Amino acid sequence: MMGVVQTKVARTDKKIVDDFAHYGVATVHEAQGRKGLLAPYMRPIYSGAHIAGTAVTVLVPPGDNWMIHVAVEHCREGDVLVVAPTSPSSAGYFGDLLATSLMSRGVRGLVIEAGCRDIKDLEKMGFPVWSKHVSAEGTVKETLGSVNEPIVCAGQDVNPGDVIVADDDGVVVVEREEAVDVLVKSREREEKEAKNRPRYAAGELSLDMYGMRPALEEKGLKYLADDGD
Amino acid sequence: MMGVVQTKVARTDKKIVDDFAHYGVATVHEAQGRKGLLAPYMRPIYSGAHIAGTAVTVLVPPGDNWMIHVAVEHCREGDVLVVAPTSPSSAGYFGDLLATSLMSRGVRGLVIEAGCRDIKDLEKMGFPVWSKHVSAEGTVKETLGSVNEPIVCAGQDVNPGDVIVADDDGVVVVEREEAVDVLVKSREREEKEAKNRPRYAAGELSLDMYGMRPALEEKGLKYLADDGD
Amino acid sequence: MMGVVQTKVARTDKKIVDDFAHYGVATVHEAQGRKGLLAPYMRPIYSGAHIAGTAVTVLVPPGDNWMIHVAVEHCREGDVLVVAPTSPSSAGYFGDLLATSLMSRGVRGLVIEAGCRDIKDLEKMGFPVWSKHVSAEGTVKETLGSVNEPIVCAGQDVNPGDVIVADDDGVVVVEREEAVDVLVKSREREEKEAKNRPRYAAGELSLDMYGMRPALEEKGLKYLADDGD
Amino acid sequence: MMGVVQTKVARTDKKIVDDFAHYGVATVHEAQGRKGLLAPYMRPIYSGAHIAGTAVTVLVPPGDNWMIHVAVEHCREGDVLVVAPTSPSSAGYFGDLLATSLMSRGVRGLVIEAGCRDIKDLEKMGFPVWSKHVSAEGTVKETLGSVNEPIVCAGQDVNPGDVIVADDDGVVVVEREEAVDVLVKSREREEKEAKNRPRYAAGELSLDMYGMRPALEEKGLKYLADDGD
Amino acid sequence: MMGVVQTKVARTDKKIVDDFAHYGVATVHEAQGRKGLLAPYMRPIYSGAHIAGTAVTVLVPPGDNWMIHVAVEHCREGDVLVVAPTSPSSAGYFGDLLATSLMSRGVRGLVIEAGCRDIKDLEKMGFPVWSKHVSAEGTVKETLGSVNEPIVCAGQDVNPGDVIVADDDGVVVVEREEAVDVLVKSREREEKEAKNRPRYAAGELSLDMYGMRPALEEKGLKYLADDGD
Amino acid sequence: MMGVVQTKVARTDKKIVDDFAHYGVATVHEAQGRKGLLAPYMRPIYSGAHIAGTAVTVLVPPGDNWMIHVAVEHCREGDVLVVAPTSPSSAGYFGDLLATSLMSRGVRGLVIEAGCRDIKDLEKMGFPVWSKHVSAEGTVKETLGSVNEPIVCAGQDVNPGDVIVADDDGVVVVEREEAVDVLVKSREREEKEAKNRPRYAAGELSLDMYGMRPALEEKGLKYLADDGD
Repeated sequence: MMGVVQTKVARTDKKIVDDFAHYGVATVHEAQGRKGLLAPYMRPIYSGAHIAGTAVTVLVPPGDNWMIHVAVEHCREGDVLVVAPTSPSSAGYFGDLLATSLMSRGVRGLVIEAGCRDIKDLEKMGFPVWSKHVSAEGTVKETLGSVNEPIVCAGQDVNPGDVIVADDDGVVVVEREEAVDVLVKSREREEKEAKNRPRYAAGELSLDMYGMRPALEEKGLKYLADDGD
Repeated sequence: MMGVVQTKVARTDKKIVDDFAHYGVATVHEAQGRKGLLAPYMRPIYSGAHIAGTAVTVLVPPGDNWMIHVAVEHCREGDVLVVAPTSPSSAGYFGDLLATSLMSRGVRGLVIEAGCRDIKDLEKMGFPVWSKHVSAEGTVKETLGSVNEPIVCAGQDVNPGDVIVADDDGVVVVEREEAVDVLVKSREREEKEAKNRPRYAAGELSLDMYGMRPALEEKGLKYLADDGD
Repeated sequence: MMGVVQTKVARTDKKIVDDFAHYGVATVHEAQGRKGLLAPYMRPIYSGAHIAGTAVTVLVPPGDNWMIHVAVEHCREGDVLVVAPTSPSSAGYFGDLLATSLMSRGVRGLVIEAGCRDIKDLEKMGFPVWSKHVSAEGTVKETLGSVNEPIVCAGQDVNPGDVIVADDDGVVVVEREEAVDVLVKSREREEKEAKNRPRYAAGELSLDMYGMRPALEEKGLKYLADDGD
Repeated sequence: MMGVVQTKVARTDKKIVDDFAHYGVATVHEAQGRKGLLAPYMRPIYSGAHIAGTAVTVLVPPGDNWMIHVAVEHCREGDVLVVAPTSPSSAGYFGDLLATSLMSRGVRGLVIEAGCRDIKDLEKMGFPVWSKHVSAEGTVKETLGSVNEPIVCAGQDVNPGDVIVADDDGVVVVEREEAVDVLVKSREREEKEAKNRPRYAAGELSLDMYGMRPALEEKGLKYLADDGD
Repeated sequence: MMGVVQTKVARTDKKIVDDFAHYGVATVHEAQGRKGLLAPYMRPIYSGAHIAGTAVTVLVPPGDNWMIHVAVEHCREGDVLVVAPTSPSSAGYFGDLLATSLMSRGVRGLVIEAGCRDIKDLEKMGFPVWSKHVSAEGTVKETLGSVNEPIVCAGQDVNPGDVIVADDDGVVVVEREEAVDVLVKSREREEKEAKNRPRYAAGELSLDMYGMRPALEEKGLKYLADDGD
Repeated sequence: MMGVVQTKVARTDKKIVDDFAHYGVATVHEAQGRKGLLAPYMRPIYSGAHIAGTAVTVLVPPGDNWMIHVAVEHCREGDVLVVAPTSPSSAGYFGDLLATSLMSRGVRGLVIEAGCRDIKDLEKMGFPVWSKHVSAEGTVKETLGSVNEPIVCAGQDVNPGDVIVADDDGVVVVEREEAVDVLVKSREREEKEAKNRPRYAAGELSLDMYGMRPALEEKGLKYLADDGD
């Protein structure tokens, strides 16, 4: 619903959320059955950041950042702001002052399917942003959107209180109801990979480790030795 | 006009131009009423550069960098080369030798709505470039364009002698006639932001600092407390 | 041919290949007559890597990385994996485990016209990748492609055993039969540029160094001195 | 949930749905408060079609149309098939045989955020399609997706049973629960426009019809009469 | 200048403008030295329209069509509305009611670097539009732009009163001051082509008609007769 | 090789080529194992054309159509001109005069990974073109390319003398050596589809016609009957 701020949000438990920071986006995405991944045009403004937090969702008109200002007072420690425009926009909705404001409340980062500016300052402050664009273009404050209503951001449904995990590979959303289950599966996957890594490093082949050869043969894979010359 | 080099250019006063280097692109863009910003696909080839200089404009055919060679001798200390193709091109018009040539004349950087190459060398040399593409693709020297004629670069009019400011957020052009005025307003804006930053850091809300609540209410913003569960 | 692995590949001589690592992509591309350059959307996942190696080619279905697993055992010291999808895909075909596997065999890097993930880990491991996308999105293992058959990758023909050179400017392929010739010409070009660089640095103009003025005049270039004000 | 077909779908009442065919996509989109519009890259394969129907939703892997075959038997008179890929794909998932199959069941059209083929045949048959791509590229039948689970298609949530309206302007989705209300508002809007059209045709200005002048003045709009020469 | 309507516009003479309708966009573009062509993403919403008129320029905020409403009363018989957004937008700024309003004043068409809707109705009314997007998405009326100030539209400077020519190949702008000269050259070009067309049809080669063979030979073109098998 | 015209081309037998015109691009693409399809951005300038012919290949510099003029005299009855730029270009390389010239020699159409102009005239003349862009932008005649050398066009290898089939779905290339085999398989596929079409029309399901149910079950597809309300 437009023109609405939901003031009461059921957030994923903070301990659960904090644990997600140990797992990369690729791991979490796999652990929950390859869903929830935002479109790959969502890129970090600087490399090396890795966060997990609870979503505060914001729907904004094109070129208008008023609702981000409105959203600030509904953020708390451990949140991640997730912003989607009602229509594609490359404008720079967000800069160092809003970041200062959010950091004072313990917000861990921003995910925005639009533009961001002051990126050098944001890097210095250590406030990570995943955005579709970088642009110095200013925005107006004229039209309402919504805060903490369900949104679609970069192709994925995001509900307020969901878990957001973001790193250099991109951004994934985990539904609040599934968070515990996905966390367990992320840990299992990570452990399995940790166990297999030395085998890969020792030269063992995935074809053998996972017994893929029969399936390949069944599909008809042929090994030829044409003279390559 | 094609096939023309204008040898006489009225440049913005150097003291004015140098002062612009204290202000970011976002600040200057806001200070001049949100105009003059080049399209956000103009990105720096390495992060952290921040320059201000006077535009030497070059219009080039697709895949042909001859006019950049012609432009060099019309550059002087404090200039920024601004290059637009007559038709979209991703070719690598510019590399380390041209940069060496420009640096010997005191040129501060390049803005090119096309491709650039040798980017690792350019970073080592400290010659910043904002470009639409990075590409090793070579160019020919067959067809004329123009030097120091008015051009449209990345969606903005650029006249020779205009001020160019560029940083990690992008590139903005300031008309020579408006430079002093915009500089003053940039300073004012910066000072205002510097004063407000501690208030943001202390947790004060922009809604209150700028008295936005009545306007939001007038637009009909509603605060609901649905059970989020 | 689909569903085929060619086990016998005529690779470019290793000494030749290793020598290519001294020359940048732009130099090699120019030296071979401005051909063989992959499309500029092929970008490194981290800056500063510069490799040369022999191509092992892989054709993969969209969102399916099975053939990369198949390709591993056909890689050897000095190779570069070159992967093209049969249909555009942004999925993350490749991550740190496959990289571990390839590094154990002496593979120098990956060129993939699709997505890659675990990029922070890959940077730490020092395994360079040039890709069209970065994406955490997982892939399946259901459908065959081919290994070491000729492919088109990012607009260029790549044959198994060809030389691949990649750096921050992009990726170039050199046909095996032409490798020695292109290597010689790359060296000559580099030497010529090294000789000219000090002249550029000393302020000499390319217009004079290469005698371009008569050709410019013949084309009709005019120098005007309109009052710029 | 992947690998699932929901066989029981609560469809919007057929009379309601049929009534929507009298209103264009722009009208319906406005009537429901400017929401529900699929991204504008969803274009009709031929012009002039205008349909309304109930959504049967299909989630498909990249380059794999198996689930569309599965979906057919869950379609009935008055439905519109809505297909989204789990990862972007331009492949041609759909052609004249599937269309023949769907037409035999009374399906009114296809909305697919991927590719479609046999478009000339589809036009002759009168089976309209709104797609992101046109492509002859074939697909495989290897991996499961889902039928009649909620999906995100071209940036919008679509639930099975929702109303889909599509014409030359694009595609809009109306939630089942809101269908009656939106239908009423669409009619009102249409009637209002019909009443105003003759006034526009007679030369009356919207500035006067809607009393916009005071608001413009308040915002500071200035009328100048510079000498245009 | 934003927030401004220039009420006095020096239009190109109507007789001159009307004459331009005899010449295609490609011809006019060539006749004026290959300049003034808007970017090729500006496409007609239906095929077969061919217009020439005088530009009324409008600068609009993203997703806000208020200034188009303001512009209407400054249009007169023979004008073409030319609209550019201050920031990229795909929204549907324009539909059949505004078209009705403009037609009542004798306006010949619309050129808009954004979205348009009601395209089927516009085709029926015979009101041609060249746009970057087609989209049903509605716009707001909140923020000022400008009318009859110079703008950059799709990469080209357009001044109020300039000549706009548009057909299935795209849109070209001719500066008012150069209109007579370009018209003469367009006619000459057309006549020359009309004379040469029968020679082409009779099988004569352009290589011979324009004497290109010596130049090709000088550039080093070689004719080989490798066995093609 | 650049700067070269191959005057001797081994063309696919004309009877074979002419037979291909009975089969759509999708059919031919499937019949040859889903390869050879040009990228889907290659679109016809008008709908309804369907051609088959032998490729005459042209490699052109960006914004330079000289080699197309050179190519004309190497075309003969039944050929299709296939043009690729050495670097991406949207310029309008081709218009009605070149089409007149080609038609006088019996050429059946043009495939160009760049821009085309005079599209309304081309439609009237009945000369079909598949292009990446439509643009009135003119080109120069300054730099050599090649004629009848192997090229990569829109992601596919095209050799002179290969078969080109193009219709509203796109463009496919068939290697000369494989033409007979692919023709036979195209016919078989078409006959099979013709036989199955009435079964689809009668409501038979592909799941049953092709016995897909066991494979779906094996993959784990589940049919659920959740209450949809």
